[in-house]
Amino acid sequence: MDCILRDENAIYYECGYSSDNALYLRLGSEAWLITDSRYTVEAREAARDAEVVEASDLLKAARSLLRSRAVKRVVYDPKDWSVAAMRGLETKLPHIRFAPVPDLSHRKRMIKRDDEIALLKRAAELGREGFDTFARYLETGGLGSREKRLHFEAEAAMSHRGEYALSFDPIVAINANAAKPHALPTDLTLKKGDLLLVDAGLRYRRYCSDRTRTAFVGESVHFGDAQRFASPRIQKAYDLVRKAHDTAIARARAGMTGAQIDRLAREVIEKGGMGEAFVHSTGHGVGLDIHEMPYISKRGTTVVEDGMVFTIEPGVYFPGEFGIRIEDMVVMRNGRAEVL
Amino acid sequence: MDCILRDENAIYYECGYSSDNALYLRLGSEAWLITDSRYTVEAREAARDAEVVEASDLLKAARSLLRSRAVKRVVYDPKDWSVAAMRGLETKLPHIRFAPVPDLSHRKRMIKRDDEIALLKRAAELGREGFDTFARYLETGGLGSREKRLHFEAEAAMSHRGEYALSFDPIVAINANAAKPHALPTDLTLKKGDLLLVDAGLRYRRYCSDRTRTAFVGESVHFGDAQRFASPRIQKAYDLVRKAHDTAIARARAGMTGAQIDRLAREVIEKGGMGEAFVHSTGHGVGLDIHEMPYISKRGTTVVEDGMVFTIEPGVYFPGEFGIRIEDMVVMRNGRAEVL
Repeated sequence: MDCILRDENAIYYECGYSSDNALYLRLGSEAWLITDSRYTVEAREAARDAEVVEASDLLKAARSLLRSRAVKRVVYDPKDWSVAAMRGLETKLPHIRFAPVPDLSHRKRMIKRDDEIALLKRAAELGREGFDTFARYLETGGLGSREKRLHFEAEAAMSHRGEYALSFDPIVAINANAAKPHALPTDLTLKKGDLLLVDAGLRYRRYCSDRTRTAFVGESVHFGDAQRFASPRIQKAYDLVRKAHDTAIARARAGMTGAQIDRLAREVIEKGGMGEAFVHSTGHGVGLDIHEMPYISKRGTTVVEDGMVFTIEPGVYFPGEFGIRIEDMVVMRNGRAEVL
Repeated sequence: MDCILRDENAIYYECGYSSDNALYLRLGSEAWLITDSRYTVEAREAARDAEVVEASDLLKAARSLLRSRAVKRVVYDPKDWSVAAMRGLETKLPHIRFAPVPDLSHRKRMIKRDDEIALLKRAAELGREGFDTFARYLETGGLGSREKRLHFEAEAAMSHRGEYALSFDPIVAINANAAKPHALPTDLTLKKGDLLLVDAGLRYRRYCSDRTRTAFVGESVHFGDAQRFASPRIQKAYDLVRKAHDTAIARARAGMTGAQIDRLAREVIEKGGMGEAFVHSTGHGVGLDIHEMPYISKRGTTVVEDGMVFTIEPGVYFPGEFGIRIEDMVVMRNGRAEVL
């Protein structure tokens, strides 16, 4: 299928190289990676099965290649292309039909190869090490720090002080701020007895990790699963979320839809009487992008198969009080979910 | 002019609030900020002259508002809208003409108000403090560190350890790596006698700072303009770039085009015999976005007026050897350029 790609990770998946200013074009058995002069040296070393084309105007270079071949129809992802960029192709190449295919690359990337699973596993391991480093900071210098500073220290720990890029802007939220599923750092200050929610990940050779833990800040701090909160109400919510997380992982099977796996977690929380506080979906695929297919949600129609990697992250949120979320990445293997 | 906006900074400019999932719609004298439930509490506190609409599907909410009024034509920026999102409006509202206007918001934001200039000035001051903090790190712990670690420490210093967001991913490049105008961090290690190029900025209340210095790493390190390099060849290039930078700032006048101001810097470097090494344009506007209008480039047709804020950043690059760039932000005031 002739295609033109603009998304950095979609391009990387096709040819093993990409930059923040690149296009990938495949026509029949030929393929080109088009990028500017800042990147062509590296591109020529790294790109597989694609000829590297250096251009200052990428769209112009793509048009010239498209004109040089007998092309009738090219597919693209309409979520990745701006109206302006697609018009730059369509209006100047009226003889070619540019056909939108949403999630073109994400569909292709849904089942991971073994080498990709190994990279995701390594990313998850390095991510856990980052959480441990952050726990040590919390014990030694975290008390009395504001969320903004904790957020910075979480970035420092997760990136292993600059060694790895982060897969997303970490969430570090104290008590009531953790009741917002996407909390932004505030001026709240960490004190003994607080609840701390941390959602963070890094990239290992471009592959993302994603993990959330909700911890009790006592004499010591750790991000293991066994947490003891001072408040019985928080402990009850924590135990319920943990049970939902563990149940979904234990009972997920290849052949289930995303909605069926979502149901496994949601049912536990509903039975525990907190269904209304579980305001988001159970999980999402992870790979080169932090959010990929399959979606583990109420409306998730994708049938989950061996080789898919996704998160299980149930949570409950009580506005003005606290929030709990526990998240791990799993891979479907031999029909069951294994934590990466 | 009826319009629909999707870009976070374009929306913020209109109503004083925005989030990473928002739409702004203006029809006649009415305006709406559409965002999801994570943001509506803050939005209702902060948004001016716009009614806050809570929606999980932003496009659906926008369609419903568009249907409820007698609308014939709505403008949008085709660079900000994906093909998929715009189709979501066009195909379901065939009676409305969605008219693309490139740089819709950037054109409007080109001349800054006094309160915006004050915020940009404060951002620039805090940015310089960040450079000074980074210089102290370099003197005390920077020698022997790899670029990746230096990059992390530059982020730490520029963000004031998490207090401010960064306006872009900093560039921290040693010797030959500085010959790439957009260098990525490598495994190179900093040693005494090296050249270090640092291009970094932060956001103060959403407004960006942007500054570059090229420093000699000796017994002490500073990011002032007066630098003494061990190599006469590097010193010659440095002095030439500094002269180009100072000349462009001293001679820029309101009423000149971007191209004429670019010429002021380029001429100095050409006369010094290094014209071919100055591979990029002299500057760009700065505001809520790190790159805005006016563009101070060979093809810059915008006439520069009082109230415009832009960078002056000449540079020379010798691949495999070294690169030099000196950058400051200026505001046009009383017809002349003042460093912010």
